[in-house]
Amino acid sequence: MKKIINTVDQVENQMVEGMVKAYPQYLKKLECGNVVVRADKKEGKVALISGGGSGHEPAHGGYVGEGMLDAAVAGAVFTSPTPDQIYEGIKAVATDKGVLMVIKNYTGDVMNFEMAREMAEMEGIKIAQVVTNDDVAVDGSLYTVGRRGVAGTVFIHKIAGALAERGGELEEVRAVAEKVIAGVRTMGMAIRPCTVPAAGVPGFELSEEEMEVGIGIHGEPGTHREALKTADEIVDMLMDKILADLDYSGSEVAVMINGAGATPLMELFIVNNRVFDILAEKGIKVYKTFVGEYMTSLEMEGFSISLLKLDGELKELLDAKADTPAFKA
Amino acid sequence: MKKIINTVDQVENQMVEGMVKAYPQYLKKLECGNVVVRADKKEGKVALISGGGSGHEPAHGGYVGEGMLDAAVAGAVFTSPTPDQIYEGIKAVATDKGVLMVIKNYTGDVMNFEMAREMAEMEGIKIAQVVTNDDVAVDGSLYTVGRRGVAGTVFIHKIAGALAERGGELEEVRAVAEKVIAGVRTMGMAIRPCTVPAAGVPGFELSEEEMEVGIGIHGEPGTHREALKTADEIVDMLMDKILADLDYSGSEVAVMINGAGATPLMELFIVNNRVFDILAEKGIKVYKTFVGEYMTSLEMEGFSISLLKLDGELKELLDAKADTPAFKA
Repeated sequence: MKKIINTVDQVENQMVEGMVKAYPQYLKKLECGNVVVRADKKEGKVALISGGGSGHEPAHGGYVGEGMLDAAVAGAVFTSPTPDQIYEGIKAVATDKGVLMVIKNYTGDVMNFEMAREMAEMEGIKIAQVVTNDDVAVDGSLYTVGRRGVAGTVFIHKIAGALAERGGELEEVRAVAEKVIAGVRTMGMAIRPCTVPAAGVPGFELSEEEMEVGIGIHGEPGTHREALKTADEIVDMLMDKILADLDYSGSEVAVMINGAGATPLMELFIVNNRVFDILAEKGIKVYKTFVGEYMTSLEMEGFSISLLKLDGELKELLDAKADTPAFKA
Repeated sequence: MKKIINTVDQVENQMVEGMVKAYPQYLKKLECGNVVVRADKKEGKVALISGGGSGHEPAHGGYVGEGMLDAAVAGAVFTSPTPDQIYEGIKAVATDKGVLMVIKNYTGDVMNFEMAREMAEMEGIKIAQVVTNDDVAVDGSLYTVGRRGVAGTVFIHKIAGALAERGGELEEVRAVAEKVIAGVRTMGMAIRPCTVPAAGVPGFELSEEEMEVGIGIHGEPGTHREALKTADEIVDMLMDKILADLDYSGSEVAVMINGAGATPLMELFIVNNRVFDILAEKGIKVYKTFVGEYMTSLEMEGFSISLLKLDGELKELLDAKADTPAFKA
């Protein structure tokens, strides 16, 4: 295992410390563990909390700040945070207007966030939740019942976060998050695996001629493995599946081309070149495009495409001010 | 060679097309080749132009926009753009106030930008230039006489771009760029190489236990190769060299932890954790930190540390509004 780290048991702590030291204007870390919250708590708004295993940086700590999240909870690499950790995060950011939990659909995450919710409700905290499940590749996989929550989650942070920031009530913020979940679809692929530090060996292996299609953000198997194709052929395959899953015809969309961690930005732009052309052919208008690393998988090499169907409300909230380490609008 | 591309001869074109399709609000492409300019030309300001070989994305097209560059010229991967290309870029953005060329110190880049400058001057365009050379690793290397220009160049784009945006004269913008060059130092390392598409094989090879210290952004050799150390030990080694090169004592600094392309963000934060502590020990105050991919080398895995010495003027210009695809402030 070749990594730029110190010891395997310190990667999460030192990552969170390094992030907070980079962005003291945005973040502070709670004493109780790897939970980051806004440097200045904002009262009078619905608080958004998200999180999950580490290894997906900048998700989710990079999205803590004005117009997005109030707290992010980081578990061990690719491992759900504990209910206690999540509960501490909730307590730190809860306001009278309540708390919305944004949970990616993985069995461990859902279970632990829901346990934390019960703990918080016993303390009288008003709380609601949404579960993101944007990955169209497979229905049920290694760590999940139902579809997996992947890069499209960042659109929930952005849009629900914007409504919370402008004073939306808990039920309104939850409803707009559900609207985003209903309109966002994602599919990914990879050409090289990643290695969880504590495991020391890659999560899967691919030959020099193979790719994994429909892969999850922890390297979980997708729909199938096949010979590596050209970028355009790969995009065609992923877009076919996304567009078959939801009717985007006549819509305006936001596009996210998300790098898995080790993919050169050059290749992500080559991918976008084709995505844009496919959408143009189909009369689907691109309102805004995001290309970069939004929800990574350590040093996995690959990408995902997310499409979000927009209406007037979602466009306005997507464009609203956001000021966080990893997302500014 | 395992890459997400179509054909080797189309990587640069399709990358630039994909970038412009992603960011039409910021960028347009000139007809004459891989030159991107601001979507809306701004008159009455000094125009900034930069560029170099492709493969360093988001440099430099990602920095075209308000408060930074007016044009970016992209050569083939790791190959200088031609004088004609650069000249077309200059002509497209030149104003009465003149043009500043920001050139990274590589022999081909300097030669071709200077030839373009001569062509532009014959057309009566007022033009000045600065050459960045922030890499402290080696004095002279594979493609360069003198020190190489690397990630610190992004600070020149930001700070000189801010002064140009607020109406600075050509000589003032050039002078502030020189001030940044005088105060910025960078050093990098890598644990895995990258493959230029047209070459098809990695630019160098490292065993599973080795790292290259002081590497350039094209994978050029640095100071030496040695056994891979811990993140903290690597940072100590790079910081020793940077801090020995320029006296930062008592200064405030901006820090950039730049990923080479395939380095997980988690590892860059672990690096920053140590950089911050070293600076704190030495009484050097961190004013602002940037962690991410600013000047990459395709899928090379490694990072560089840049330190920029700040004064009141530089802090104000660093904080001034920037609105570009890859850098917002």
